[in-house]
Amino acid sequence: MAKIKKLLVANRGEIALRIMRTAREMGIATVAVYSEADRLSPHVKFADEAVCLGPPPSNQSYLVADKIIQACKDLGVDAIHPGYGFLSENAAFAQKVADSGIIFVGPSPESIEVMGSKLAAKQAVAQYNIPLVPGTEEAISDLAAAKAKASEIGYPILIKASAGGGGKGMRIVESEAEFEEQMQRAVSEAHSAFGDGAVFIEKFITSPRHIEIQILGDQHGNTVYLFERECSIQRRHQKVIEEAPSAVVSPEMRKAMGEAAVGVAKACTYYGAGTVEFIVDDKLNFYFLEMNTRLQVEHPVTEMITGKDLVREQILIAEGNPLSFAQEDLEIYGHAVEIRVYAEDPKNNFLPDIGKLITYRRPQGPGIRVDDGFEEGMDIPIYYDPMIAKLITHGANRQEAIDKMIRAINDYRITGIQTTLDFCRFALQHEAFVSGQFDTKFVERYFTPDKLEPVFTDQEKEMLAALAVEFFEKHDRKINPREAVKSLPSTNWKNRLI
Amino acid sequence: MAKIKKLLVANRGEIALRIMRTAREMGIATVAVYSEADRLSPHVKFADEAVCLGPPPSNQSYLVADKIIQACKDLGVDAIHPGYGFLSENAAFAQKVADSGIIFVGPSPESIEVMGSKLAAKQAVAQYNIPLVPGTEEAISDLAAAKAKASEIGYPILIKASAGGGGKGMRIVESEAEFEEQMQRAVSEAHSAFGDGAVFIEKFITSPRHIEIQILGDQHGNTVYLFERECSIQRRHQKVIEEAPSAVVSPEMRKAMGEAAVGVAKACTYYGAGTVEFIVDDKLNFYFLEMNTRLQVEHPVTEMITGKDLVREQILIAEGNPLSFAQEDLEIYGHAVEIRVYAEDPKNNFLPDIGKLITYRRPQGPGIRVDDGFEEGMDIPIYYDPMIAKLITHGANRQEAIDKMIRAINDYRITGIQTTLDFCRFALQHEAFVSGQFDTKFVERYFTPDKLEPVFTDQEKEMLAALAVEFFEKHDRKINPREAVKSLPSTNWKNRLI
Repeated sequence: MAKIKKLLVANRGEIALRIMRTAREMGIATVAVYSEADRLSPHVKFADEAVCLGPPPSNQSYLVADKIIQACKDLGVDAIHPGYGFLSENAAFAQKVADSGIIFVGPSPESIEVMGSKLAAKQAVAQYNIPLVPGTEEAISDLAAAKAKASEIGYPILIKASAGGGGKGMRIVESEAEFEEQMQRAVSEAHSAFGDGAVFIEKFITSPRHIEIQILGDQHGNTVYLFERECSIQRRHQKVIEEAPSAVVSPEMRKAMGEAAVGVAKACTYYGAGTVEFIVDDKLNFYFLEMNTRLQVEHPVTEMITGKDLVREQILIAEGNPLSFAQEDLEIYGHAVEIRVYAEDPKNNFLPDIGKLITYRRPQGPGIRVDDGFEEGMDIPIYYDPMIAKLITHGANRQEAIDKMIRAINDYRITGIQTTLDFCRFALQHEAFVSGQFDTKFVERYFTPDKLEPVFTDQEKEMLAALAVEFFEKHDRKINPREAVKSLPSTNWKNRLI
Repeated sequence: MAKIKKLLVANRGEIALRIMRTAREMGIATVAVYSEADRLSPHVKFADEAVCLGPPPSNQSYLVADKIIQACKDLGVDAIHPGYGFLSENAAFAQKVADSGIIFVGPSPESIEVMGSKLAAKQAVAQYNIPLVPGTEEAISDLAAAKAKASEIGYPILIKASAGGGGKGMRIVESEAEFEEQMQRAVSEAHSAFGDGAVFIEKFITSPRHIEIQILGDQHGNTVYLFERECSIQRRHQKVIEEAPSAVVSPEMRKAMGEAAVGVAKACTYYGAGTVEFIVDDKLNFYFLEMNTRLQVEHPVTEMITGKDLVREQILIAEGNPLSFAQEDLEIYGHAVEIRVYAEDPKNNFLPDIGKLITYRRPQGPGIRVDDGFEEGMDIPIYYDPMIAKLITHGANRQEAIDKMIRAINDYRITGIQTTLDFCRFALQHEAFVSGQFDTKFVERYFTPDKLEPVFTDQEKEMLAALAVEFFEKHDRKINPREAVKSLPSTNWKNRLI
């Protein structure tokens, strides 16, 4: 067992800070890396030592494996935590780290490799009886064979480029009549975009939910699941609200999904923390999508409902320790919700809204956690993902966690940029979310920018008018607005005016 | 069942804010009260409405029952939460509130009355088989009878004035030889101080721990205990570090103490949240001390290990709801520690150190909660208890909670005043605390101000000297201190120098 003494976090922002906090609690010295754009970041200030990797963008700094490994050698670092994004799912990097005699806090390069390829992943899990979305097992380019397969699966079906990803090269076919034309287009598009015309055909899930299972495995063959995270609320195909447990997962379904996820992990001899993503249809059938071989952005909701510190577990596993708990020791305590606070304008298609955090005050109180990497007065750099913070709440049940989140959103004070806070409040108060009956199409189904306009009742309008008169006529602008507002009957908007 | 729509919090600072946060999460409008000294306080800004009660000190504002009740009438308030301190254990106030048709979020005036008198409390619990410190059941002034009783109990014994409190009028008698002289002095002191020469005689517990049990009772006769809080680390006879569970309480002892506490609650037909305080001797015998008929300062540690929001439960009980859970539904999840951050100078007998919070930055991260009532730049008023904040951490076990607390203390940035932060770090790292083997005499046994002096190793001294040379000679003060510090090997003190 190798006790880690000094850990380099090959990442930035909130996740670098979050990882270093746990490392410090474990008595491990911390090394930050940073780009010139991040030189004033809290993660740099927090670390015991910090190394500048170079200028932005990332391919000149956070993605330069050799510089990171050199920093480890220079500073006597014995382990690297990659966080999420950047080099976290790069098998070649993991291999290079291992070859340099440094511990990689994550799975083996082989596990990353297998799960990094959709096809290899599907082949690996084949013998583990993991439910997959019905479709072709291998890439196909023959029209007649593809059509026969589509009929067998049943419409609607989805044609996906074998080499594609992130929604590129995908086509939905509603009926057999359209099939030939769409298939020909898909093949020719795939050929010109990726140099490979092979496609997969699979069942198109019309009302899909994204539900994932957190797993932890040690290097001694023990693997457990830490229940599910519901991640269906997305914008631009990216998660924005996550919760645990899911409102629709029963204990039986949880067990079945958990055991399937453990099967996926076993299929690639996985160790470390990992996430097995499933797509769930409107009849609550679940199908394996992919495995993320790293810590997820949304890992805090799992920490809140299980009481486990996932980064601590990652480090203990990387040191070679066996898991200190078994499946039957894990229980769900209450309910947790996370929202991602992005510097984005929900009224303008969620496009990044970069600028200065002129005001930045965090909400506080029981059951509230803010994971962030900024301070008031800082600029949000244009080079990176515009996530400012993750706001997580924990309550005794789902409604309490939601109530707490809405209160926390109202208490968050951010000026200088637009954020997803108002959108998240809209979503959390929407009846589809409250009832638990939603899917990944929540935003396109229910959201339009006008939903974020303030709505005043007639009584409120009357009071606002009265207030204006008070200010500008009677009192010749000498009145204290705070006192004037206080003399009016109480409503929630008032607090936000002050 | 009366649904509370608007709640006035008859308190200030962190507890007012903490109560109003829960109220807002429950959809209840909030009214703050404040003294002129507190007009800029966060609790005033947070509330939907706020009423100035008058100038400090408290007997002209926070303690003026009639002004508070008038504010309720003026603003249509239907319930008052008294917090802790101030009017929270004033039976006459509770009665006045009820007589005004306002809900008092707390127990009945009768329960407050009974538990407010040591003698009445002991008489009330007599039939419930609650262990009491061996001693006289009634006040005594006859010398011979007192001496006989003292011999029966066994020395050392304590002589306490019947009308005393807070340590006033107490004498420890080590042996029979000293008894007569000490008894005569005690009686005459009690007579001159309180106009009543009657005293109690009881067993003196030489190595006492203070352990208390949180209870919740509804208005329908259901009462549960939410386990213990260990509060033995005190300074100036006041708690400064609390934790749950206690390191020395076994499941059997927990059950026995819990059931005794429920007995005490039943003895005064208690409803609401309450705390039954016990003194525990070195053989882990526990004896009932008193019941606090209100929310305690240290209630968060119980919230962290049970997942229950005690203020929410208080409000639900005050509305007349039955408890939504039974004793068997309650479990302990992990371990929680709270430290009280006081504006006090531990190097000067913990005397208040009032001033401006020039820097004020809170620690963050998983399992960390800060309950406070100040912001950076604010003055700590001289009129009130100098507690700035409560810092609470939760971990999977005791060591993780302590490690997290030490990390959080190191991340807390407070300048402008002295605080108890460094003292608390000293205490948490002391072997007596780590082992769980401590009592209420921790401070007098182990603490001296020199314990807070920074201790440098020879290597560190060498580095500091090198650093000084770098700054002031070689680089003609042009070097960036941050960069210079970074070039040195990593140690924890470095992070705090920057």
